[in-house]
Amino acid sequence: MSTLGFIEYENAGPEVRAVYDDIMATRKVDRINNFWKALAHDPVRLKKIWEENKQIMAGGAIDALNKEMIYLAISISNQCDYCIASHTASARKKGMTDEIFKELMSVVGLANQMNRLVAGFQVEIDEPFKAVG
Amino acid sequence: MSTLGFIEYENAGPEVRAVYDDIMATRKVDRINNFWKALAHDPVRLKKIWEENKQIMAGGAIDALNKEMIYLAISISNQCDYCIASHTASARKKGMTDEIFKELMSVVGLANQMNRLVAGFQVEIDEPFKAVG
Amino acid sequence: MSTLGFIEYENAGPEVRAVYDDIMATRKVDRINNFWKALAHDPVRLKKIWEENKQIMAGGAIDALNKEMIYLAISISNQCDYCIASHTASARKKGMTDEIFKELMSVVGLANQMNRLVAGFQVEIDEPFKAVG
Amino acid sequence: MSTLGFIEYENAGPEVRAVYDDIMATRKVDRINNFWKALAHDPVRLKKIWEENKQIMAGGAIDALNKEMIYLAISISNQCDYCIASHTASARKKGMTDEIFKELMSVVGLANQMNRLVAGFQVEIDEPFKAVG
Amino acid sequence: MSTLGFIEYENAGPEVRAVYDDIMATRKVDRINNFWKALAHDPVRLKKIWEENKQIMAGGAIDALNKEMIYLAISISNQCDYCIASHTASARKKGMTDEIFKELMSVVGLANQMNRLVAGFQVEIDEPFKAVG
Amino acid sequence: MSTLGFIEYENAGPEVRAVYDDIMATRKVDRINNFWKALAHDPVRLKKIWEENKQIMAGGAIDALNKEMIYLAISISNQCDYCIASHTASARKKGMTDEIFKELMSVVGLANQMNRLVAGFQVEIDEPFKAVG
Repeated sequence: MSTLGFIEYENAGPEVRAVYDDIMATRKVDRINNFWKALAHDPVRLKKIWEENKQIMAGGAIDALNKEMIYLAISISNQCDYCIASHTASARKKGMTDEIFKELMSVVGLANQMNRLVAGFQVEIDEPFKAVG
Repeated sequence: MSTLGFIEYENAGPEVRAVYDDIMATRKVDRINNFWKALAHDPVRLKKIWEENKQIMAGGAIDALNKEMIYLAISISNQCDYCIASHTASARKKGMTDEIFKELMSVVGLANQMNRLVAGFQVEIDEPFKAVG
Repeated sequence: MSTLGFIEYENAGPEVRAVYDDIMATRKVDRINNFWKALAHDPVRLKKIWEENKQIMAGGAIDALNKEMIYLAISISNQCDYCIASHTASARKKGMTDEIFKELMSVVGLANQMNRLVAGFQVEIDEPFKAVG
Repeated sequence: MSTLGFIEYENAGPEVRAVYDDIMATRKVDRINNFWKALAHDPVRLKKIWEENKQIMAGGAIDALNKEMIYLAISISNQCDYCIASHTASARKKGMTDEIFKELMSVVGLANQMNRLVAGFQVEIDEPFKAVG
Repeated sequence: MSTLGFIEYENAGPEVRAVYDDIMATRKVDRINNFWKALAHDPVRLKKIWEENKQIMAGGAIDALNKEMIYLAISISNQCDYCIASHTASARKKGMTDEIFKELMSVVGLANQMNRLVAGFQVEIDEPFKAVG
Repeated sequence: MSTLGFIEYENAGPEVRAVYDDIMATRKVDRINNFWKALAHDPVRLKKIWEENKQIMAGGAIDALNKEMIYLAISISNQCDYCIASHTASARKKGMTDEIFKELMSVVGLANQMNRLVAGFQVEIDEPFKAVG
């Protein structure tokens, strides 16, 4: 289900099919996630958002697995169920073991706790931490 | 400033000093952040929370720099100014270059955007992504 | 389902029925949403909250459709599934076309992305933007 | 500072003054918080929102101090600096000791941590916890 | 369901069983919530997090029912469905009546509304509310 | 201030200057906001993000003023101080009167309140509101 419904490969126009093909080739999978099928009602945005995802999430100065985990950590903090499910799967595929997952959960729990302790105690930013320039 | 004020090293009791000493030794710094000085009114919690931080943030299956960046990404998503300032500084110290920082920002921006697109389109979780067990 | 269960029209007392009648007349519908049936255990609050909604969401300096979309945009940012579902339906009824919906999604995605880029880069507020008075 | 600027008592019309007088009498204070002075540009909303606050925050089935602390806990979770500052002050006035404040901080930290652990582990709701009715 | 699946009592090792036994004894229940069964893949964290919960949520300067309600209020603000379901049940068990629940909901709604009004009006913190020390 | 410092026009390379020129021409202003000057350390992202903003925020099926207000409403819900300040200014420039601003604040307050009432009451989505397709 989705607000606008899904556009399946067989019903998609050539621009959408081109994006679907690129998604499957890039990720080495043979199906398209519901998200892209929901977004495909707007072929221009579909292409733009897919390319943005492809470029940003590719390994660079930060490797692809750590990028997935940063993405997952944010999705958990934001309580996005779909994103948690899909990016847990992606992180698994990129090498997230149970051990790594458990450490990730500890960092996520800690940061969310600490963010509020700092706010609750109304702690002023230390001079040396202030952004310069 | 802080709700309860700060406890400086020279005014701290032995339990608090022991934690302060461990923080400075572990982090190889010679000052204590405002957060710990605010928390020191509760020496038991101070010790517990410091040890939790020390243990969770140490390099393990995920290395220390990536843990810092996950923590920073969450703090940004939660809009915690103090945490952003202090963990940008920590990440820098652990090796976050300008290049890495820029990639991190791109992932943070993307995840926060995508989390809402998914919610807004009311996308149902794909069968293969559902948690099992 | 709901914490306190639902109060259906046939089981409702006169104060609750009066609110239900006003909801159906105002919105030109013949059923009451689950939310109101959950809230009806507290007839005083039900009346107050309904009247607040009716008054605030009516077209004024901002027209009713744009108010619905502002409401929907917030519900998406807050990840409130019920609110997204019900206010997508309301916005549709008030004239939100697929075209408008897609533009709305783009603004919602962009604002959530930009909010974090600004926080992550620790950008200081420009002098001319500071609130005066 | 505030978007619309502040309306001081001496410049306020009779409706605004009546609300200001009621705020000072109810809270046994001799000054008006910036928030109300910012809201006073809309005398009708000022009156409504003040009365809503007065009625909801008064002691009832939950006493006034615990209501303040619930309010403060939410403001901390939402990272609202103004609200944290003003409701820490209110809670102090209603009897929040340092001891109570520290326990409150522990609960706030814990809940924010646990909320994300549950989401991250994708834990399904236990049958007995499901809302009925 | 859960990312790592559940560890049932009969399949648990002695450390996990010891925690499960303590949970059931402390809470006077004869079943273990899904959350703990998901976390049990990491017996060390399970024990630590359970003990943290047990100690923080026990009645102290704030009584156990009010702590539950503070926890529930945060979970609602964070839109954590699992937490809302499980802590509504816990609060009920500790004495939350329908009357108390309705007042709690009013405070939760109000604080979330007010947090944004303050932010939207860009209200500056009043001098007397500023944290000292 | 900003994490990486600001790149002023006079110190900018030709790609950055081209974006700065387009920003000033598009918005009919003669200065560049701090955000763009912070982002300019990454000329490729600067150009991409500016063009994304320009394209998405231009009037289309939703007019430019309403888009600004949707953006502002989200920034308020997310407690992004910089974004609130800068987009209040932009909305003013596009025609947001005091009257419109006050109505906007009412909708923002209401939606944030209602989002949590719905979550707190654990209200199930009405059948007719479920996304189809």
